[in-house]
Amino acid sequence: MLQQTASPKRWDTRRQEKRERMARLGLTGKVLPSGEVPAMLEKLIAPGDRVVLEGNNQKQADFLARMLAQTDPGKLHDLHMIMPSVSLPEHLDLFEKGIARKIDFSYSGAQSLRMSQLLEDGLLEVGAIHTYIELYSRLFVDLIPNVALVAAYKADRNGNLYTGPSTEDTPAIAEATAFKNGIVIAQVNELVENEADLPRVDIPGSWVDFVVVADKPFFIEPLFTRDPRLIKPVHILMAMMAIKGIYAKHQVQSLNHGIGFNTAAIELLLPTYGERLGLKGKICKNWTLNPHPTLIPAIETGWVETVHCFGGELGMEDYIAARPDVFFTGMDGSMRSNRAFCQMAGQYAVDMFIGSTLQVDGAANSSTVTKGRVSGFGGAPNMGHDPHGRRHATPAWLDMMEGNDPLERGKKLVVQMVETYQSGSSPTFVENLDAVEVAKESGMPLAPVMIYGDDVTHVLTEEGIAYLYRAKSLKERKDMVAAVAGITEVGMAAKPDTVKRLRQENKIAFPEDLGIARTEAKRSLLAAGSIAELVEWSGGLYNPPSRFRSW
Amino acid sequence: MLQQTASPKRWDTRRQEKRERMARLGLTGKVLPSGEVPAMLEKLIAPGDRVVLEGNNQKQADFLARMLAQTDPGKLHDLHMIMPSVSLPEHLDLFEKGIARKIDFSYSGAQSLRMSQLLEDGLLEVGAIHTYIELYSRLFVDLIPNVALVAAYKADRNGNLYTGPSTEDTPAIAEATAFKNGIVIAQVNELVENEADLPRVDIPGSWVDFVVVADKPFFIEPLFTRDPRLIKPVHILMAMMAIKGIYAKHQVQSLNHGIGFNTAAIELLLPTYGERLGLKGKICKNWTLNPHPTLIPAIETGWVETVHCFGGELGMEDYIAARPDVFFTGMDGSMRSNRAFCQMAGQYAVDMFIGSTLQVDGAANSSTVTKGRVSGFGGAPNMGHDPHGRRHATPAWLDMMEGNDPLERGKKLVVQMVETYQSGSSPTFVENLDAVEVAKESGMPLAPVMIYGDDVTHVLTEEGIAYLYRAKSLKERKDMVAAVAGITEVGMAAKPDTVKRLRQENKIAFPEDLGIARTEAKRSLLAAGSIAELVEWSGGLYNPPSRFRSW
Repeated sequence: MLQQTASPKRWDTRRQEKRERMARLGLTGKVLPSGEVPAMLEKLIAPGDRVVLEGNNQKQADFLARMLAQTDPGKLHDLHMIMPSVSLPEHLDLFEKGIARKIDFSYSGAQSLRMSQLLEDGLLEVGAIHTYIELYSRLFVDLIPNVALVAAYKADRNGNLYTGPSTEDTPAIAEATAFKNGIVIAQVNELVENEADLPRVDIPGSWVDFVVVADKPFFIEPLFTRDPRLIKPVHILMAMMAIKGIYAKHQVQSLNHGIGFNTAAIELLLPTYGERLGLKGKICKNWTLNPHPTLIPAIETGWVETVHCFGGELGMEDYIAARPDVFFTGMDGSMRSNRAFCQMAGQYAVDMFIGSTLQVDGAANSSTVTKGRVSGFGGAPNMGHDPHGRRHATPAWLDMMEGNDPLERGKKLVVQMVETYQSGSSPTFVENLDAVEVAKESGMPLAPVMIYGDDVTHVLTEEGIAYLYRAKSLKERKDMVAAVAGITEVGMAAKPDTVKRLRQENKIAFPEDLGIARTEAKRSLLAAGSIAELVEWSGGLYNPPSRFRSW
Repeated sequence: MLQQTASPKRWDTRRQEKRERMARLGLTGKVLPSGEVPAMLEKLIAPGDRVVLEGNNQKQADFLARMLAQTDPGKLHDLHMIMPSVSLPEHLDLFEKGIARKIDFSYSGAQSLRMSQLLEDGLLEVGAIHTYIELYSRLFVDLIPNVALVAAYKADRNGNLYTGPSTEDTPAIAEATAFKNGIVIAQVNELVENEADLPRVDIPGSWVDFVVVADKPFFIEPLFTRDPRLIKPVHILMAMMAIKGIYAKHQVQSLNHGIGFNTAAIELLLPTYGERLGLKGKICKNWTLNPHPTLIPAIETGWVETVHCFGGELGMEDYIAARPDVFFTGMDGSMRSNRAFCQMAGQYAVDMFIGSTLQVDGAANSSTVTKGRVSGFGGAPNMGHDPHGRRHATPAWLDMMEGNDPLERGKKLVVQMVETYQSGSSPTFVENLDAVEVAKESGMPLAPVMIYGDDVTHVLTEEGIAYLYRAKSLKERKDMVAAVAGITEVGMAAKPDTVKRLRQENKIAFPEDLGIARTEAKRSLLAAGSIAELVEWSGGLYNPPSRFRSW
């Protein structure tokens, strides 16, 4: 039943709109004059547009953010911002000034308090809080951008971009925008004449409409640098338990580490404690990880075969360039990171995710959201769950099977590694996550849970390890969590008989069950005790930011 | 404890190896002479290498596959092939000749029978069977390639590639190889002098080592073209149930459709039956989908806002280029597909996956593997599960919540749409999947299940819909499956009283419960009844391959 022939509808409204906006500039070529950016943005962006502003927990398109905040809210208003990370004061100025109204984002660190305030004041409307990869995905489906504001180290006059070690989110954002007739604008630290003057091309000029030289190099946060001086014996104890009771026990060969002193301690124990246990070449070979400086000793001693990175890390550039067998580097010798692919790999290709959190409830649900802070998830929920689309088997993955069903499958290891108390006196283990209350108060459709308890396979505290994948029921899962929750309210509910039985059944393990003496957990076990020693390990190639230099 | 300083180890063995291999060719520039490819491959590849050979269910690097199969097994042997799809006879010749030994792959359609035979004969060893996106992920972790053999439409002499509508897997494969000092070789249909002669750049020349002009254009399979003539009334009945009982009921706004006449029928009913139900603008707005020709009428009548594509579809190029508001197209006007991003979007950004399968067991586990065939999964398990890392809410996703737990989350809709019997007399619903037996026989660590029952939210047959997300127990899930499994062994076990109760509780629905008369399900309801009518709908822009032309 043919009801009608092809309609006379216009099918290129976005392309036409883009042409008109670009024509308004009256510019020849792709280079925007740096001094006129707010006025130019007022012509290239329209009220109500979806605008992706690049910035994650590392690099920031900060110049373009500042320029956008200087536009006239009379001309530019009600923008729907899509921002992997809300990190800079300018980001929220946009809302305070009325330039922007709605936001979809993944992470807000330093700005989480002010964001809550703007939300309460009705100046900001949250679309949703996402994981990084989930947010990029929506750029191709129901959050297609009109404009993308991105950052690169260098560009040539044809718009070819060199993003190098900090490639990060740029390919995903640029692709979704460029191929849906959106406008792609890149701030760059340096403009060169020709492609031959670029170290390499990361983003082809065919995808980029404008480049503009920023007033200063884009901001990068060295978020993944942890000073070994701040690693305490308790971290070392927990790291020893992790290595012996989880990594070695399950043969964890590929993995992701989150930020934190816990995992930094593990990295620094591999060449010492791990070596002594004879584990080199058996565990921790392939990593999806930001280039943690604390991984240097493990790399230098041959533990680490490969590392694929979400982003770069300030000061690690030369070291990485000198270790191309380990890191992903280009023809020019510098690294290429890629957050979308690294998150994809962290979801689908690794045996284990291990991370920390602020609150864990009795069923092992966790969240970093606490009252008055809308902080977001970053990448943790993406890597901290068992992807049911995975079909390849590894020893660690298979080791999570407990039953005899012929259709049973393995599981990703999702480890929560937390001290029972946060610094200060707030307990990590709580009866109810603050997230539940926060959701009610802010009218969110769901409580902002970071990692759900049914995805957690292990909880590791200074008290011991709970092997949650072995729990036969929700009740038993709760008993196991309580057994390692120390003197928190959750932990004090543990019954001695139950704890005894769980130990006998190898469902929980205390340090002594693993043959680890608490007295062994000394700082002298660390392969490096300071940033200076990391520099030494690197043969002088690691060049830490000045705030980490104490010499 | 600083144990040693930076070791004198070599850290650029891969880079050095690459340089040496490339130097062996004695070639200036990036263009390989087309007549000497096997000899060149013998110099660029070494025994035991991991080689990614591009090819999925659409485009194939078939020239390079043929050339590789012509190399001397005395020089080139024991290769570890990584192939998204095993589609061509040459792919398996590699194993028969001893050039390759191990394979990691995602899909094998036409070659699945021969593959089983080679496996049995000990000539081929399977690493694992993956989903597409899972396989790409491992390229960055534990399956890093030494060499990538890819396909593009055009290249310039600097190695810049135009992959256009068939960009597909190339970016993921090229990136993993190029940035780990692997060698990237692209076969192209046409070589041009300069970048300015390319429509646009999809892959920068900085990532590509060699290009070679193929003897004929790369092969593309028009896998997603379904002739409306072959749509039967039973497909139309099921499509009506899907639209009314699932799409409208849950407000499914973003979705993926698999291959098949069932979903083709849904696409062709939107402008007729869907229109009559007043659903336009309310459902089926944003798609992650190959450019199905059967979607043309829905696009022309304004149902479809956007489509992001895994790959291209032969004959759809001009139509797509003329509909840039709907499809993702570049500055040059042609489409860019991207399988990695589209799979990512299909996993994380859409409300629903709907697909078909060959066998379903009583608990709704399904597989396309049958005895004697190692067929693989493609993308279905990736999109056909609930990603626990998703945190944004949509009406359909929230509608899957059944309980009152404040920590409950929504779910992706995963719909299995199958007739109770396959053509011929084999039942779709079976007591035990063949996959279980196949796994035992071939020594696989796990049964090759396509979609696990606990991820399936709906089973839809010509009998009715089972709303499995509402099942309170595995027992009830099985009762619900049985209630719609017709006169198969599984279906005949259904008890009338239970079926009655399930209908009353709205856990299953028969057509009459949805207000659908079986007599309504007529071919005249289809917006197009033939390929010719699809061409007409497209205003002559759709140019079907000759095998689909009957006029």
